[in-house]
Formats: sequence, structure tokens, C-alpha cells
Amino acid sequence: MDERRELHTTIVEVGPRDGLQNEDRILPAEVKIELIERGVAAGITRIEAVSFVHPARVPQMADAEQVMAGVPRPGGVSYIGLVLNRRGLDRALAAAVDEVNAVVVATDTFCVRNQGVTTDAAMDAFEGIAGAAAEAGVRCGITIAAAFGCPFEGQTPPARVAELARRAHAAGAREIALADTIGVGVPGQVRDLTRRVRAAAPGLPLRFHFHNTRNTGYANALAAVAEGVTVLDASTGGFGGCPFAPAATGNIATEDLLYALHREGHTTGIDPQAVAATGAWLGDHLGKPAPALLGRAGPFPAPAG
Amino acid sequence: MDERRELHTTIVEVGPRDGLQNEDRILPAEVKIELIERGVAAGITRIEAVSFVHPARVPQMADAEQVMAGVPRPGGVSYIGLVLNRRGLDRALAAAVDEVNAVVVATDTFCVRNQGVTTDAAMDAFEGIAGAAAEAGVRCGITIAAAFGCPFEGQTPPARVAELARRAHAAGAREIALADTIGVGVPGQVRDLTRRVRAAAPGLPLRFHFHNTRNTGYANALAAVAEGVTVLDASTGGFGGCPFAPAATGNIATEDLLYALHREGHTTGIDPQAVAATGAWLGDHLGKPAPALLGRAGPFPAPAG
Repeated sequence: MDERRELHTTIVEVGPRDGLQNEDRILPAEVKIELIERGVAAGITRIEAVSFVHPARVPQMADAEQVMAGVPRPGGVSYIGLVLNRRGLDRALAAAVDEVNAVVVATDTFCVRNQGVTTDAAMDAFEGIAGAAAEAGVRCGITIAAAFGCPFEGQTPPARVAELARRAHAAGAREIALADTIGVGVPGQVRDLTRRVRAAAPGLPLRFHFHNTRNTGYANALAAVAEGVTVLDASTGGFGGCPFAPAATGNIATEDLLYALHREGHTTGIDPQAVAATGAWLGDHLGKPAPALLGRAGPFPAPAG
Repeated sequence: MDERRELHTTIVEVGPRDGLQNEDRILPAEVKIELIERGVAAGITRIEAVSFVHPARVPQMADAEQVMAGVPRPGGVSYIGLVLNRRGLDRALAAAVDEVNAVVVATDTFCVRNQGVTTDAAMDAFEGIAGAAAEAGVRCGITIAAAFGCPFEGQTPPARVAELARRAHAAGAREIALADTIGVGVPGQVRDLTRRVRAAAPGLPLRFHFHNTRNTGYANALAAVAEGVTVLDASTGGFGGCPFAPAATGNIATEDLLYALHREGHTTGIDPQAVAATGAWLGDHLGKPAPALLGRAGPFPAPAG
């Protein structure tokens, strides 16, 4: 066993946002709220609940304010709202999120397609968002998207990711998430990026966001925790497909990640079987089976009795 | 990067045997032969082609002799026949396999259900098989099944696996394969078992067989190669479900394993896209989509043009 690793891993549940925003079927706010309620009941403490982007671009998230008005607010649970610009930040602050998270895509072609600006301009926008969030007293993180590879430009140069991390750190980011948005990464990249980003943004908490598009997502997640990373994104049921690979699976599934982490000796405070049940329930609402496997395979060891 | 690791990994394609033997639909011999021909054309050099077990127990493998009579025999390709007893060995030798592989299940409850005898009795049988194979001049390996966990007994004690490896080595096994038959293992177990089995059976080549039943199979495979293991089983398309988890996926898929290995800097000599095409073709014959993801997601980086 690796002596560096932390034994407690925090899961950021991104199912309500990344899990749902690429689905054809738009779920009503009350179902989204129930998804969040179920997650909180299962022990999840950080949830990327909504995004504050233009409703014409992402109609799945048009009811962000309604969702945030309805979620439970027990102590110890933090809600993240995703924002791309100052207008989104203002909405997020008005909706009383606990944290905001901005996105900068590491490659220009993809960044222009995703948010209409180059990577450099998106980082300029992040600097404004981070400053305004700090003034408002709200924790602001950044996701560097396509940090492993881009559908248009191929493998993303790791030095480019490190430079973006350096700028984000200087701008006051409180956390950096590295996202394998299209699910092409492998563990060697996880180790390399972890070391480079830590050197470029010393002391800043690091978080990873993996997709299982080509079946490398769980290996990547375990490689990250072996490097001492303590925060991982995951999506209940494994929903959240990639628009560039419409037939493939999406985010790593919360329940399957919990299975692997717990069997490796980590604690998370979250009940995998409760999450697996929610994954199946969400599949019923979306009209398709959950990509997650734990719910189909069953617990191990089997419960006594 | 880990300095211990070898850069060439040999894939043992188990699709024609483990991939097909749990499927409801029984494929005709000519389709099995075409599956093997496609694998050889893609660069696969070791193939678990058939098993010589009682046709009443495994009707999917009843045509083993017919399959072996029809496969291509280019130089450098080795065919493995699975056997459980001396009768099976005699059939395998008559069918001119290049290697035989025997199975001993590490837990008694599962071993009795699988092959009608306790683990100890199965190991006694292996000793007879290994001796007879050596007399016939045919390489004989052993698979220690349920080496990670058992559906009836829970996690398999690693000391038990090491003791079986010691006995197999003493009996003349030329290779030991450790199988996560029900897909419950995690990388920490891979590392632990690798070290224990190497100590118990020094110098004997080690091979792993993973199922992706709970989404840990690829992480396990990469953990094995990081330990210097150079031989891995995989199944084209990821077919080969577990009878104890009928809704779950089965073997790790050859094409997805190739994607991960190649992106990590390993060579295999096998074309992933050709294997992915075969996985889709096999899905058509079995009447269900391949669990493998590479064929759905597409190559990365995208081909130029």
C-alpha cells in the first residue's frame, strides 16, 4: 500500500449538473431536488447541483434557481454552482450557492465551441469571476476542461495545463479540478498532471473529474488517490454522456467509484448501495439503464443472512 | 513511469472460450473459427480457443474438435485448450492444441459447484494433468479461479492462493493465471497476490484474468503491468458474463485494454480498431451490443484526414 495516500476521499457528486446536462430528456425540478435529497441522505457532502449558463444553450439547467430554492440545507453539505461569466456568477450568488466553479477549456478550438471564447479569454473571465466571488465571500474553484485531450486538437500538452493552473492560482482560485472531459486519459497522465499542477499551483487543493468513455476512468481515479488527491467528481448511475461520443458512457459512476475506494481501504462516508438504488431510480426517470455496474452486479461480499 | 514495468504485453484472447461459454446463444463452429481468424489477422498470438469439458455441462464448447480443426496455423500463434481432467487432456492432445490450461477454483464451495470436487482434489487432478502434459511435450498452465473473491465465501484468503501456486509450481505448471472470476478485485489485491505468488512460485510466469463486473477490471490490469506482469487475458468485445451476476458485464475487453496499454506506452502488436470491429461483429452474432467502449467512443487521437 502506498504510504502517501490519504484514507478519506471526498466525492463531489456532479450527477445533477454534468450527469443531466447532456441528456435528451429534461427532468423537472422536483426530480432534480429528489436526486439531491437522495444523495444527501446517502452521505454525500459536496454536490455540483446546477449551472448558471444561458438557458437557450443548456435548457436542461434552465431551472437552476428553482432547484437551489428546493434543496435541503443541513449543516455540512456544500452546493456548487457552475458559472461561465459574471452574469452567471450574479445568478449563483443570488441563489445562495455555497461555492462557485468556473470552467476554462484548455484547448482553443474546444473552448470556442464550448463557451465562445479562446482559452486565454476564458482565463481572463475567470480572473474577474474569482475576484468578484472573493468580494462576495464565496469559495471559487476552476475546472480546467479537456486537460487530458481534445476532440479537435488531440492530446493536450501538459505544460499548457500547468500554465493555466499557475494563472488560476494567481487569480485566487481556491481549488483546481482537472477534467478528462472526453474520456481519453490514462493513469500515466494523471500522475504527470498531478505533479506539474502541484508545482505550478503550490498548496492549492486538487480535484479530478473523469469520464469512463474508453474504460479508463476508474483506473485514473485510483491513480489520482494513489498520488494523494483527496477529492474526486463522480455522477450517480454514471450518467452524463459526452456529446463527442454519443454512444459511449459518461462520467465515472459514484457507486462504482465508492466500491473501488472502499475495497482499497478508503473511507468516504457514503453508502454505495443507496447510491446504486438512486442510479436505478434515475435511469427510470431518464428512460435508460444506468451505465454503473455495481447496481447490476450486487454488493460484495454478499450481505449475511 | 514505473521502471519495473515491461514495455511489451502479451494478450491472451479468451473470447472464443470464456467470452462465449456463458452466452445463451450457441454460435456455430464456423463463426468461432472466423472470430479466431479475425483475431490472428489483428495481431493476436495467444488464443484460449476451446475447452474440452463435458458437452452436457457446457454445450457452447461441444464442437471444440471441429473448431481446432478449422483454425489457421501460422507460425507464432499458440492455441490453448482448457481442460479439467485427464479425459479433457486426451481430447486436447488429439486436437493438437499448443498449450493446455487447467482450472482449480481457490474456494471449496465454488470448486465443488464448478467442477464437482474440492479445491484439494482439483489440485490433485492438476498434478496428474501436468505430468501427462509434460510427457506429451505440451506446455501446461493453471488458472487459479476465484483468486480474489468467491460468491459463496467472500474474499479469498491470499495465503490460500499462494499455497495453491506453490503446489502448482511443484507439479510442473509452466504458467500461473490468477483469475478474478466474479469481478470483485481491486488493485491492492493485485499487488498483494503478485508478490505472494512470486514468492511461492519463484520464476514461474504470471498471468492475470480480470472481469469488469464492478468496473475495477481495467484498473486491475494496469496495476498488474505496473508490477511487471507481462501476460493478460482479455475478451474481444468484452463478452463473457458471470453467471453469478447475469446483468453485469464480463471479461475486460481486448480493445479497451489495448487502448489503455498503448496510451500508457506499452506495445502489444495488436490493432485495437480491428479488434473493436470484431467486437461489433461478434455482438451481431450474439444478438447484443458489445460491452466494450472503444468501438462506441472511437479512436483517440482521431485519425487525420
